[in-house]
Amino acid sequence: MTEIVRRNPGPSLSRVVEYGNLVFVAGTTADNKAASCKAQTEEVLKKIDAYLAAAGTHKSKILSANVWVADMHEKEQMDAAWQAWVDSDNKPARACVEARLGSPDTRVEIMCIAAK
Amino acid sequence: MTEIVRRNPGPSLSRVVEYGNLVFVAGTTADNKAASCKAQTEEVLKKIDAYLAAAGTHKSKILSANVWVADMHEKEQMDAAWQAWVDSDNKPARACVEARLGSPDTRVEIMCIAAK
Amino acid sequence: MTEIVRRNPGPSLSRVVEYGNLVFVAGTTADNKAASCKAQTEEVLKKIDAYLAAAGTHKSKILSANVWVADMHEKEQMDAAWQAWVDSDNKPARACVEARLGSPDTRVEIMCIAAK
Repeated sequence: MTEIVRRNPGPSLSRVVEYGNLVFVAGTTADNKAASCKAQTEEVLKKIDAYLAAAGTHKSKILSANVWVADMHEKEQMDAAWQAWVDSDNKPARACVEARLGSPDTRVEIMCIAAK
Repeated sequence: MTEIVRRNPGPSLSRVVEYGNLVFVAGTTADNKAASCKAQTEEVLKKIDAYLAAAGTHKSKILSANVWVADMHEKEQMDAAWQAWVDSDNKPARACVEARLGSPDTRVEIMCIAAK
Repeated sequence: MTEIVRRNPGPSLSRVVEYGNLVFVAGTTADNKAASCKAQTEEVLKKIDAYLAAAGTHKSKILSANVWVADMHEKEQMDAAWQAWVDSDNKPARACVEARLGSPDTRVEIMCIAAK
Protein backbone atom coordinates (compact mmCIF):
# COMPACT_ATOMS: atom_id res chain seq x y z
CA MET A 1 0.00 0.00 0.00
CA THR A 2 1.34 3.41 -0.94
CA GLU A 3 2.12 5.46 2.15
CA ILE A 4 0.53 8.88 2.75
CA VAL A 5 2.86 11.44 4.33
CA ARG A 6 1.27 14.49 5.93
CA ARG A 7 3.34 17.54 6.93
CA ASN A 8 2.68 20.66 9.04
CA PRO A 9 -0.67 19.61 10.53
CA GLY A 10 -2.88 22.35 12.00
CA PRO A 11 -6.34 22.17 13.57
CA SER A 12 -8.11 21.56 10.23
CA LEU A 13 -5.59 20.52 7.61
CA SER A 14 -2.08 19.44 6.71
CA ARG A 15 -0.05 21.97 4.74
CA VAL A 16 1.43 19.23 2.52
CA VAL A 17 0.25 15.72 1.71
CA GLU A 18 2.44 13.30 -0.26
CA TYR A 19 1.00 10.21 -1.89
CA GLY A 20 3.11 8.14 -4.25
CA ASN A 21 4.56 10.59 -6.74
CA LEU A 22 1.95 13.30 -6.08
CA VAL A 23 2.24 16.19 -3.63
CA PHE A 24 -0.83 18.19 -2.58
CA VAL A 25 -0.17 21.66 -1.12
CA ALA A 26 -3.00 23.27 0.87
CA GLY A 27 -4.44 26.69 0.10
CA THR A 28 -1.64 29.04 1.14
CA THR A 29 -1.97 32.69 2.20
CA ALA A 30 0.49 35.36 3.33
CA ASP A 31 1.16 36.26 6.96
CA ASN A 32 1.71 39.94 6.14
CA LYS A 33 -1.90 40.91 5.48
CA ALA A 34 -0.95 44.60 5.27
CA ALA A 35 1.02 43.91 2.08
CA SER A 36 -0.21 44.44 -1.49
CA CYS A 37 -1.58 41.58 -3.55
CA LYS A 38 1.80 41.40 -5.34
CA ALA A 39 3.77 41.23 -2.09
CA GLN A 40 1.31 38.73 -0.60
CA THR A 41 1.73 36.56 -3.71
CA GLU A 42 5.52 36.73 -3.33
CA GLU A 43 5.21 35.57 0.28
CA VAL A 44 2.81 32.78 -0.67
CA LEU A 45 5.16 31.55 -3.40
CA LYS A 46 8.10 31.50 -0.96
CA LYS A 47 6.01 29.37 1.39
CA ILE A 48 5.11 27.04 -1.47
CA ASP A 49 8.82 26.74 -2.37
CA ALA A 50 9.47 25.62 1.21
CA TYR A 51 6.56 23.15 1.25
CA LEU A 52 7.69 21.62 -2.03
CA ALA A 53 11.29 21.39 -0.80
CA ALA A 54 10.14 19.58 2.37
CA ALA A 55 8.42 17.05 0.11
CA GLY A 56 11.58 16.65 -1.98
CA THR A 57 10.25 18.44 -5.03
CA HIS A 58 10.38 21.85 -6.71
CA LYS A 59 8.27 24.48 -8.48
CA SER A 60 9.44 23.08 -11.82
CA LYS A 61 7.35 19.99 -11.07
CA ILE A 62 4.03 21.68 -10.26
CA LEU A 63 1.30 20.07 -12.35
CA SER A 64 -1.73 22.21 -11.54
CA ALA A 65 -2.51 25.27 -9.45
CA ASN A 66 -5.62 27.07 -8.22
CA VAL A 67 -5.31 30.77 -7.52
CA TRP A 68 -7.97 32.87 -5.80
CA VAL A 69 -7.65 36.64 -5.75
CA ALA A 70 -9.82 38.75 -3.45
CA ASP A 71 -10.30 41.31 -6.23
CA MET A 72 -9.96 40.43 -9.90
CA HIS A 73 -8.57 43.94 -10.48
CA GLU A 74 -5.49 42.74 -8.59
CA LYS A 75 -4.92 39.70 -10.81
CA GLU A 76 -2.20 41.61 -12.67
CA GLN A 77 -0.31 42.08 -9.41
CA MET A 78 -0.60 38.38 -8.64
CA ASP A 79 0.52 37.51 -12.17
CA ALA A 80 3.55 39.83 -11.99
CA ALA A 81 4.77 37.96 -8.92
CA TRP A 82 3.75 34.59 -10.40
CA GLN A 83 5.51 35.13 -13.73
CA ALA A 84 8.71 36.28 -11.99
CA TRP A 85 8.61 33.06 -9.96
CA VAL A 86 7.24 30.29 -12.16
CA ASP A 87 9.79 28.02 -13.87
CA SER A 88 9.55 29.43 -17.39
CA ASP A 89 10.12 26.03 -19.02
CA ASN A 90 7.71 24.21 -16.72
CA LYS A 91 4.49 26.13 -16.23
CA PRO A 92 1.63 24.28 -14.56
CA ALA A 93 -1.99 24.19 -15.63
CA ARG A 94 -3.71 26.91 -13.61
CA ALA A 95 -7.07 28.58 -12.98
CA CYS A 96 -7.50 31.97 -11.31
CA VAL A 97 -10.89 33.23 -10.12
CA GLU A 98 -12.06 35.82 -7.62
CA ALA A 99 -13.25 34.78 -4.15
CA ARG A 100 -13.66 36.31 -0.74
CA LEU A 101 -10.86 34.74 1.31
CA GLY A 102 -10.35 33.90 4.99
CA SER A 103 -9.97 37.52 6.10
CA PRO A 104 -10.79 40.84 4.40
CA ASP A 105 -7.12 41.72 3.98
CA THR A 106 -6.11 38.37 2.50
CA ARG A 107 -5.54 39.29 -1.15
CA VAL A 108 -4.52 35.94 -2.63
CA GLU A 109 -4.59 32.20 -1.90
CA ILE A 110 -2.82 29.48 -3.90
CA MET A 111 -3.23 25.68 -3.80
CA CYS A 112 -1.32 23.26 -6.02
CA ILE A 113 -0.56 19.67 -6.98
CA ALA A 114 3.02 18.77 -7.84
CA ALA A 115 4.90 15.70 -8.97
CA LYS A 116 7.88 14.45 -7.01
CA MET B 1 -5.26 0.06 -18.89
CA THR B 2 -6.41 1.22 -15.48
CA GLU B 3 -10.18 1.01 -15.16
CA ILE B 4 -12.31 4.04 -14.28
CA VAL B 5 -15.24 3.28 -11.94
CA ARG B 6 -18.02 5.86 -11.76
CA ARG B 7 -20.68 5.75 -9.02
CA ASN B 8 -24.03 7.52 -8.45
CA PRO B 9 -24.39 9.13 -11.88
CA GLY B 10 -26.83 12.02 -12.22
CA PRO B 11 -27.68 14.21 -15.20
CA SER B 12 -24.36 16.11 -15.13
CA LEU B 13 -21.88 14.23 -13.00
CA SER B 14 -20.91 11.11 -11.07
CA ARG B 15 -20.79 11.48 -7.30
CA VAL B 16 -17.64 9.34 -7.08
CA VAL B 17 -14.98 8.45 -9.66
CA GLU B 18 -12.30 5.87 -8.91
CA TYR B 19 -9.14 5.63 -10.97
CA GLY B 20 -6.28 3.42 -9.86
CA ASN B 21 -5.61 4.34 -6.25
CA LEU B 22 -7.30 7.75 -6.47
CA VAL B 23 -10.93 8.54 -5.60
CA PHE B 24 -12.53 11.80 -6.74
CA VAL B 25 -15.66 12.90 -4.82
CA ALA B 26 -17.88 15.51 -6.49
CA GLY B 27 -18.88 18.78 -4.87
CA THR B 28 -21.28 17.69 -2.13
CA THR B 29 -24.04 19.77 -0.53
CA ALA B 30 -26.66 19.10 2.14
CA ASP B 31 -30.28 18.15 1.43
CA ASN B 32 -31.55 20.03 4.47
CA LYS B 33 -31.14 23.57 3.16
CA ALA B 34 -32.99 25.00 6.19
CA ALA B 35 -30.14 23.90 8.45
CA SER B 36 -27.27 26.08 9.69
CA CYS B 37 -23.88 26.03 8.01
CA LYS B 38 -22.62 23.76 10.82
CA ALA B 39 -25.49 21.31 10.41
CA GLN B 40 -25.19 21.38 6.62
CA THR B 41 -21.47 20.63 6.97
CA GLU B 42 -22.28 17.68 9.24
CA GLU B 43 -24.69 16.33 6.63
CA VAL B 44 -22.16 16.84 3.83
CA LEU B 45 -19.46 15.01 5.78
CA LYS B 46 -21.81 12.07 6.43
CA LYS B 47 -22.45 11.86 2.70
CA ILE B 48 -18.72 11.97 2.00
CA ASP B 49 -18.20 9.16 4.53
CA ALA B 50 -20.70 7.07 2.55
CA TYR B 51 -19.14 7.91 -0.83
CA LEU B 52 -15.69 7.01 0.44
CA ALA B 53 -16.98 3.75 1.95
CA ALA B 54 -18.59 2.80 -1.37
CA ALA B 55 -15.18 3.26 -2.99
CA GLY B 56 -13.53 1.13 -0.32
CA THR B 57 -11.77 3.96 1.42
CA HIS B 58 -12.14 6.25 4.45
CA LYS B 59 -11.79 9.86 5.62
CA SER B 60 -8.35 9.01 7.03
CA LYS B 61 -7.15 8.68 3.43
CA ILE B 62 -8.36 12.01 2.06
CA LEU B 63 -5.47 13.75 0.34
CA SER B 64 -6.96 17.11 -0.57
CA ALA B 65 -10.27 18.94 -0.12
CA ASN B 66 -11.91 22.08 -1.47
CA VAL B 67 -14.47 23.77 0.73
CA TRP B 68 -16.73 26.60 -0.39
CA VAL B 69 -18.79 28.50 2.17
CA ALA B 70 -21.61 30.80 1.09
CA ASP B 71 -20.55 33.37 3.67
CA MET B 72 -17.01 33.54 5.07
CA HIS B 73 -18.52 34.62 8.41
CA GLU B 74 -19.81 31.05 8.68
CA LYS B 75 -16.40 29.43 8.14
CA GLU B 76 -16.11 28.89 11.91
CA GLN B 77 -19.33 26.85 11.86
CA MET B 78 -17.98 24.76 8.99
CA ASP B 79 -14.67 24.30 10.77
CA ALA B 80 -16.35 23.23 14.01
CA ALA B 81 -18.10 20.41 12.16
CA TRP B 82 -14.98 19.65 10.10
CA GLN B 83 -12.63 19.44 13.10
CA ALA B 84 -15.04 17.16 14.97
CA TRP B 85 -15.06 14.88 11.92
CA VAL B 86 -11.60 14.93 10.36
CA ASP B 87 -9.23 12.10 11.32
CA SER B 88 -6.97 14.00 13.70
CA ASP B 89 -3.86 12.05 12.68
CA ASN B 90 -4.61 12.28 8.98
CA LYS B 91 -5.72 15.74 7.94
CA PRO B 92 -5.85 16.49 4.23
CA ALA B 93 -4.51 19.52 2.41
CA ARG B 94 -7.48 21.91 2.12
CA ALA B 95 -8.53 25.30 0.81
CA CYS B 96 -11.67 27.15 1.90
CA VAL B 97 -12.97 30.19 0.03
CA GLU B 98 -16.33 31.93 -0.22
CA ALA B 99 -18.57 31.38 -3.23
CA ARG B 100 -22.23 31.70 -4.12
CA LEU B 101 -23.44 28.10 -4.33
CA GLY B 102 -26.15 26.27 -6.25
CA SER B 103 -29.03 27.75 -4.26
CA PRO B 104 -29.25 30.72 -1.87
CA ASP B 105 -29.75 28.48 1.15
CA THR B 106 -26.83 26.16 0.33
CA ARG B 107 -24.29 27.21 2.98
CA VAL B 108 -21.40 24.86 2.20
CA GLU B 109 -20.05 22.59 -0.54
CA ILE B 110 -17.12 20.17 -0.23
CA MET B 111 -15.17 18.29 -2.93
CA CYS B 112 -12.23 15.99 -2.24
CA ILE B 113 -9.62 13.59 -3.58
CA ALA B 114 -8.79 10.50 -1.53
CA ALA B 115 -6.43 7.57 -1.77
CA LYS B 116 -7.73 4.03 -1.63
CA MET C 1 11.23 9.11 -13.30
CA THR C 2 7.85 9.77 -14.86
CA GLU C 3 8.09 12.50 -17.48
CA ILE C 4 5.97 15.66 -17.29
CA VAL C 5 4.71 16.90 -20.68
CA ARG C 6 3.49 20.49 -20.86
CA ARG C 7 1.50 21.79 -23.86
CA ASN C 8 0.47 25.25 -25.09
CA PRO C 9 2.56 27.35 -22.70
CA GLY C 10 1.56 31.01 -22.23
CA PRO C 11 3.03 33.70 -19.98
CA SER C 12 1.63 32.18 -16.77
CA LEU C 13 0.57 28.61 -17.41
CA SER C 14 0.47 25.57 -19.68
CA ARG C 15 -2.92 24.71 -21.12
CA VAL C 16 -2.33 20.97 -20.64
CA VAL C 17 0.04 19.07 -18.35
CA GLU C 18 0.47 15.30 -18.65
CA TYR C 19 2.00 13.25 -15.87
CA GLY C 20 1.93 9.48 -16.02
CA ASN C 21 -1.66 8.54 -16.69
CA LEU C 22 -3.10 11.88 -15.51
CA VAL C 23 -3.85 14.92 -17.66
CA PHE C 24 -4.44 18.34 -16.06
CA VAL C 25 -6.31 20.89 -18.20
CA ALA C 26 -6.02 24.56 -17.16
CA GLY C 27 -9.00 26.81 -16.48
CA THR C 28 -10.49 27.33 -19.93
CA THR C 29 -12.64 30.25 -21.09
CA ALA C 30 -14.29 31.21 -24.37
CA ASP C 31 -12.80 33.67 -26.87
CA ASN C 32 -16.23 34.96 -27.89
CA LYS C 33 -17.02 37.00 -24.80
CA ALA C 34 -20.13 38.47 -26.45
CA ALA C 35 -21.76 35.04 -26.45
CA SER C 36 -24.25 33.75 -23.87
CA CYS C 37 -23.17 31.51 -21.01
CA LYS C 38 -24.48 28.51 -22.98
CA ALA C 39 -22.55 29.44 -26.12
CA GLN C 40 -19.42 30.23 -24.11
CA THR C 41 -19.70 26.81 -22.44
CA GLU C 42 -19.98 25.16 -25.86
CA GLU C 43 -16.82 26.94 -27.00
CA VAL C 44 -14.99 26.00 -23.79
CA LEU C 45 -15.97 22.34 -24.19
CA LYS C 46 -14.71 22.31 -27.81
CA LYS C 47 -11.40 23.67 -26.59
CA ILE C 48 -11.24 21.00 -23.89
CA ASP C 49 -11.97 18.33 -26.52
CA ALA C 50 -8.94 19.59 -28.46
CA TYR C 51 -6.70 19.74 -25.37
CA LEU C 52 -7.66 16.20 -24.40
CA ALA C 53 -7.09 14.95 -27.96
CA ALA C 54 -3.62 16.52 -28.00
CA ALA C 55 -2.85 14.55 -24.86
CA GLY C 56 -4.16 11.34 -26.43
CA THR C 57 -7.30 11.14 -24.36
CA HIS C 58 -11.01 11.98 -24.55
CA LYS C 59 -13.94 13.47 -22.61
CA SER C 60 -15.04 9.93 -21.69
CA LYS C 61 -11.97 9.74 -19.47
CA ILE C 62 -12.42 12.94 -17.47
CA LEU C 63 -12.18 12.14 -13.77
CA SER C 64 -13.02 15.45 -12.15
CA ALA C 65 -14.02 18.95 -13.26
CA ASN C 66 -14.34 22.38 -11.67
CA VAL C 67 -16.82 24.77 -13.21
CA TRP C 68 -17.11 28.45 -12.31
CA VAL C 69 -20.04 30.48 -13.57
CA ALA C 70 -20.04 34.27 -13.36
CA ASP C 71 -23.69 34.22 -12.30
CA MET C 72 -25.32 31.22 -10.64
CA HIS C 73 -28.56 32.15 -12.45
CA GLU C 74 -26.78 31.05 -15.65
CA LYS C 75 -25.84 27.61 -14.29
CA GLU C 76 -28.77 26.10 -16.23
CA GLN C 77 -27.32 27.44 -19.47
CA MET C 78 -23.94 25.95 -18.62
CA ASP C 79 -25.56 22.64 -17.69
CA ALA C 80 -27.56 22.50 -20.95
CA ALA C 81 -24.32 22.72 -22.93
CA TRP C 82 -22.51 20.40 -20.50
CA GLN C 83 -25.20 17.67 -20.59
CA ALA C 84 -25.32 17.76 -24.40
CA TRP C 85 -21.56 17.27 -24.43
CA VAL C 86 -20.65 15.00 -21.53
CA ASP C 87 -20.20 11.30 -22.29
CA SER C 88 -23.45 10.00 -20.81
CA ASP C 89 -21.88 6.73 -19.65
CA ASN C 90 -18.81 8.39 -18.22
CA LYS C 91 -19.63 11.50 -16.23
CA PRO C 92 -16.86 12.99 -14.09
CA ALA C 93 -17.07 14.15 -10.51
CA ARG C 94 -17.75 17.89 -10.70
CA ALA C 95 -18.31 21.00 -8.61
CA CYS C 96 -19.87 24.22 -9.89
CA VAL C 97 -19.75 27.46 -7.92
CA GLU C 98 -20.10 31.14 -8.77
CA ALA C 99 -17.03 33.35 -9.10
CA ARG C 100 -16.05 36.60 -10.74
CA LEU C 101 -13.87 35.53 -13.67
CA GLY C 102 -10.99 37.09 -15.61
CA SER C 103 -13.16 39.66 -17.39
CA PRO C 104 -16.71 40.93 -16.75
CA ASP C 105 -18.02 39.25 -19.90
CA THR C 106 -16.44 35.88 -19.18
CA ARG C 107 -19.49 33.81 -18.18
CA VAL C 108 -17.90 30.41 -17.50
CA GLU C 109 -14.53 28.77 -16.82
CA ILE C 110 -13.84 25.02 -16.68
CA MET C 111 -10.77 23.12 -15.41
CA CYS C 112 -10.45 19.34 -15.36
CA ILE C 113 -8.35 16.28 -14.62
CA ALA C 114 -8.55 13.33 -17.03
CA ALA C 115 -7.07 9.87 -17.28
CA LYS C 116 -5.18 8.83 -20.39
